[in-house]
Amino acid sequence: MSPDLNAETAPSIRPGEVAVDLPATFDAGLYFIGRIRTPWTKREDCPKNAGESDTVCTIELDERYAAALDKVETCTHLIVLYWMDRARRDLVVQTPRHYGDGRGTFALRSPVRPNPIALSVVKLLKVEGTRLSIQNIDCLDNTPLLDIKPYFASVDSRPDAAVGWHRDRANEAK
Amino acid sequence: MSPDLNAETAPSIRPGEVAVDLPATFDAGLYFIGRIRTPWTKREDCPKNAGESDTVCTIELDERYAAALDKVETCTHLIVLYWMDRARRDLVVQTPRHYGDGRGTFALRSPVRPNPIALSVVKLLKVEGTRLSIQNIDCLDNTPLLDIKPYFASVDSRPDAAVGWHRDRANEAK
Repeated sequence: MSPDLNAETAPSIRPGEVAVDLPATFDAGLYFIGRIRTPWTKREDCPKNAGESDTVCTIELDERYAAALDKVETCTHLIVLYWMDRARRDLVVQTPRHYGDGRGTFALRSPVRPNPIALSVVKLLKVEGTRLSIQNIDCLDNTPLLDIKPYFASVDSRPDAAVGWHRDRANEAK
Repeated sequence: MSPDLNAETAPSIRPGEVAVDLPATFDAGLYFIGRIRTPWTKREDCPKNAGESDTVCTIELDERYAAALDKVETCTHLIVLYWMDRARRDLVVQTPRHYGDGRGTFALRSPVRPNPIALSVVKLLKVEGTRLSIQNIDCLDNTPLLDIKPYFASVDSRPDAAVGWHRDRANEAK
């Protein structure tokens, strides 16, 4: 496993984007613990916003971890962490096509980031053995699964939170 | 870097807990991109619930990624991902001391999990260079930082979400 693993799939840089040299070695290792099955096999087919998508998708957890699902069925919503294995990792400023100007990677939810861990809050419909039926995810079929966590509204829900650059942009469009 | 990295610090198993053999190799690598500075140096000193803690803590991002903070200051809340480097990774059923009976790892927010990635929704107070002042985090001092994401209420906030096993337990205590 080399830090250059995904270099061959890295797209070219857009005007205004900034890349950095990444460290020569990794600091920790991840296990892929399952796969997320969705109907989308190309990035352009994925829903732009996971919240907009009611498509039912499936988490297929490796049998090894089956016992770890005990009591998960009592949760209405889960936080799913997954690995964006096709994303480059070296961009610190990005110019998403639909925005036009650059912004920092940590102000974006783009898959392109030093550690391409994506996060979705999903609705849990059903648990059958090691298969979980979920809604509100927008990733490619066969995306590697990293973690499943119960969603606690008391600490995870902040209905009044705002992303200023995004709100300002929405206001300008009015 | 070996999957046995943390074996020596693994505590013993409690009654009812179940461990599995983890895979022999990792599937992907992580960079530590900074550190989270908190007043807590022992696990027993950490707040039990990040939401309860108003203590101001600091994210110290590596200078390498400084440009990635552009426009982060416009966010009121962030999702912070960090690495629980002292946690064992092989337990699929856990018996937290304060619950008494076992439950699956994926129904818990315990640091003990196959990929010990922790997640906190934090309030952002201030960005000064590569230092971010935040509230609502409960980790040990010097915890490795993995990612910072803007919190979008439209997709991340689910005020009506429930964790059944936790709610039932709260009701029993009444």
